[in-house]
Amino acid sequence: MAGLDQVLARIDADIEASLERLFAVLRIKSISTDPAFAKDCQANADWHVADLKSIGFEASARPTPGHPIVVAHDRSAGGPSALFYGHYDVQPVDPLELWDRDPFEPTIQTMPDGTKIITGRGSADDKGQLMAFVEACRAWKAVTGKLPISVSVLLEGEEESGGVNLPGFLDANADELRADIGLICDTNMWDPKTPAIVTMLRGLCGEEFTIHAADRDLHSGFYGMAAANPNRIVAKILADLYDADGRVTLPGFYNGVPDLPDSLRKQWDTLGFSTEAFLGMIGLSIPAGEKGRDALEMVWSRPTCEINGMGGGYQGAGFKTVIPSVASAKVSFRLVFDQDPHAIRKAFREHVRARVPADCRVEFLEHGSGQAIRFPNDDPAFGKARQALSDEWGKPAVFIGSGGSIPVTHQLKKSLGMDVILAGFGLEDDRIHSPNEKYNLESFHKGIRSWARILEALSR
Amino acid sequence: MAGLDQVLARIDADIEASLERLFAVLRIKSISTDPAFAKDCQANADWHVADLKSIGFEASARPTPGHPIVVAHDRSAGGPSALFYGHYDVQPVDPLELWDRDPFEPTIQTMPDGTKIITGRGSADDKGQLMAFVEACRAWKAVTGKLPISVSVLLEGEEESGGVNLPGFLDANADELRADIGLICDTNMWDPKTPAIVTMLRGLCGEEFTIHAADRDLHSGFYGMAAANPNRIVAKILADLYDADGRVTLPGFYNGVPDLPDSLRKQWDTLGFSTEAFLGMIGLSIPAGEKGRDALEMVWSRPTCEINGMGGGYQGAGFKTVIPSVASAKVSFRLVFDQDPHAIRKAFREHVRARVPADCRVEFLEHGSGQAIRFPNDDPAFGKARQALSDEWGKPAVFIGSGGSIPVTHQLKKSLGMDVILAGFGLEDDRIHSPNEKYNLESFHKGIRSWARILEALSR
Repeated sequence: MAGLDQVLARIDADIEASLERLFAVLRIKSISTDPAFAKDCQANADWHVADLKSIGFEASARPTPGHPIVVAHDRSAGGPSALFYGHYDVQPVDPLELWDRDPFEPTIQTMPDGTKIITGRGSADDKGQLMAFVEACRAWKAVTGKLPISVSVLLEGEEESGGVNLPGFLDANADELRADIGLICDTNMWDPKTPAIVTMLRGLCGEEFTIHAADRDLHSGFYGMAAANPNRIVAKILADLYDADGRVTLPGFYNGVPDLPDSLRKQWDTLGFSTEAFLGMIGLSIPAGEKGRDALEMVWSRPTCEINGMGGGYQGAGFKTVIPSVASAKVSFRLVFDQDPHAIRKAFREHVRARVPADCRVEFLEHGSGQAIRFPNDDPAFGKARQALSDEWGKPAVFIGSGGSIPVTHQLKKSLGMDVILAGFGLEDDRIHSPNEKYNLESFHKGIRSWARILEALSR
Repeated sequence: MAGLDQVLARIDADIEASLERLFAVLRIKSISTDPAFAKDCQANADWHVADLKSIGFEASARPTPGHPIVVAHDRSAGGPSALFYGHYDVQPVDPLELWDRDPFEPTIQTMPDGTKIITGRGSADDKGQLMAFVEACRAWKAVTGKLPISVSVLLEGEEESGGVNLPGFLDANADELRADIGLICDTNMWDPKTPAIVTMLRGLCGEEFTIHAADRDLHSGFYGMAAANPNRIVAKILADLYDADGRVTLPGFYNGVPDLPDSLRKQWDTLGFSTEAFLGMIGLSIPAGEKGRDALEMVWSRPTCEINGMGGGYQGAGFKTVIPSVASAKVSFRLVFDQDPHAIRKAFREHVRARVPADCRVEFLEHGSGQAIRFPNDDPAFGKARQALSDEWGKPAVFIGSGGSIPVTHQLKKSLGMDVILAGFGLEDDRIHSPNEKYNLESFHKGIRSWARILEALSR
């Protein structure tokens, strides 16, 4: 098809300018979880509004009780419609001393094996991925004056901080946002050569709790063992979450979690997944979870419980013989199939309360929840997108599960009744949420080309 | 005795100037555990050298691999000799936001009940206590031109940070420092009206460990349950230190710990100790340690295990779905009777190592050790000091145990063969090691008078 070929050529010719635009947005410190960066989040939203307007979208930054949500439409094509979702916010960058470069001063680096990477916080999660879609739209408009299908864009600013304002926004603006299909670019390829569409996604339940004991920090010499130590209470609560076989002990936790169907197991067996290689890449070798299940099963189809943060007492250099007055922890659960995040939150809080002595107290803080989700990969739109990806990468795209949670996927289904094609170009070694996050230049470049192809495929 | 009465009158007349000198030393930020304050520690040592010289001591600040040790002598009196020990270093002040006032800008405050207090870090631990002794010497010199007995002064700068350099210093300078009796002013009164001499002191074993897992922080969505989480490993290690009855689980931990002798139990029963009041003062009500033992027994004669600090992962505001690459904890044990700190450190490290997965590693850091100690309270010097305290406070002084560890006490016994009279004027509500540390003005004033009396009593 002539139009598409011209668009792909335009993308190749324009790649330097595409990178300049990506770098501009990577320089904005849009850390949504830290109130100190609220102005940067607003600036990031404003940047996208101006950029989307410049290529013909009707765009605005809609205020929320938190950070703004960018909404943009270009429905000049008529016909089939898609709603693209991305998020412009990023994770905190600590520990800063582990970064080789300024996380907010992006660069292109060439690795020893010749791979070119884009460095910086948000390069992979999710600024590089969302700009790949925007650049594909820009190329279509530049070459043909219009998009192949009607496109709406929704950019969230609180994906990394619980996303509490998005569900209400979707409900309130359902008629404006509803489309034939959702498109989300916040996932990984199967490997650097094999594109993938994620059709199984885990849910999330995030909780934080703080134990309060004495009304001041105490000297452990005078009060040791006599006074309650919140560190000890927190350690017990956390350790008791797991049994000796690595299973989560919360009553009812595995309700709604079937064993892996044989058909899926067979399909996954063809992927050539290696636990050794998967863990070896991060310097480990022993699966830490449920005994008797392999790592691929664990990260795609089994629920998890992880302690994302814990702390109490003196953590500086040297030693301080203190019994602190408070200690706390942040715990998240990844959910699969029919697990109910609300039931699990309730069971977790009961688990905690049962371990708090009567003269101490606990405070809870909720950090987001979402149920697991599966999409019908026999739907025609999924087939078209799969073919477009296979055409671009020269290798059949695979339908896979994913360990990560993208709560919006569930919300699009629930609030807007939409299925979602999750196609992304991240790689396992992108170090998202970690120091030295990167996005391969090839992911960005062929990602733009992939979206140009998918938009065209969906118009047929 | 005419000389003593004149000295006591001089102390009363000079109290404002005594407070000015104490405030000068309280303003010095001698936080020994933090290398950023090394110069302040040196300045503090220099301050004491100049001050002790000004009242006729031969004084110098002796260099060590860490902070200097101040040594001073005034042996003009001849006759019985004493070595006074104090420490000029202080604990860190975090969390700073919980202090009502600048910890290094001392003030006098009047409480609602009329009690006057001296505020500031080190006011009770140990600058106020050590200056009480120095001021007593100053008054004797001012009134009589000499001290009642030969006095040496030893001021350490690393008591709050492990004190690793003191034992070697004592061994190397044993002949210079040896005296008939040791005097230490780093302990509490029984209550605000009842002076006390501590004759049982617990030992200490301090340990820090860090668990290293993956070579980077991980996204818990991609690696959850598949990769080892150091937070989970640390929580398990810490929780497993205690059994369901609150006993420490380390094999051999209770070796050398006899049950409380009936005679001591009877003496302690006369003290009118109230667990309810002891815990109520800090907002608690339930003893947290070994089941079946009361709080006084726990803090005086039972060993303890406390988690003084622990941390790993994201502890800031909001949520970060990270699996950290490291997590760590600081644990201290208070030891009694014949418990061996080295055997306990070994058992602790075995306990930790047994819980570290084969693909992770652990690092240990030692933070000081000292054995428990008891002194013969039927020795004449103890009787004289007890009578001097009883005379000053108008109430019989009591021989008590103490929960705190003062490792130097054991070192004076071991290196110099000396018994030590531990007499101090701290109170349980002094909040040492905590925000808003204070020292009662009465503790300081009557503390000076008490030392003036003890010096005189020991000369007879």
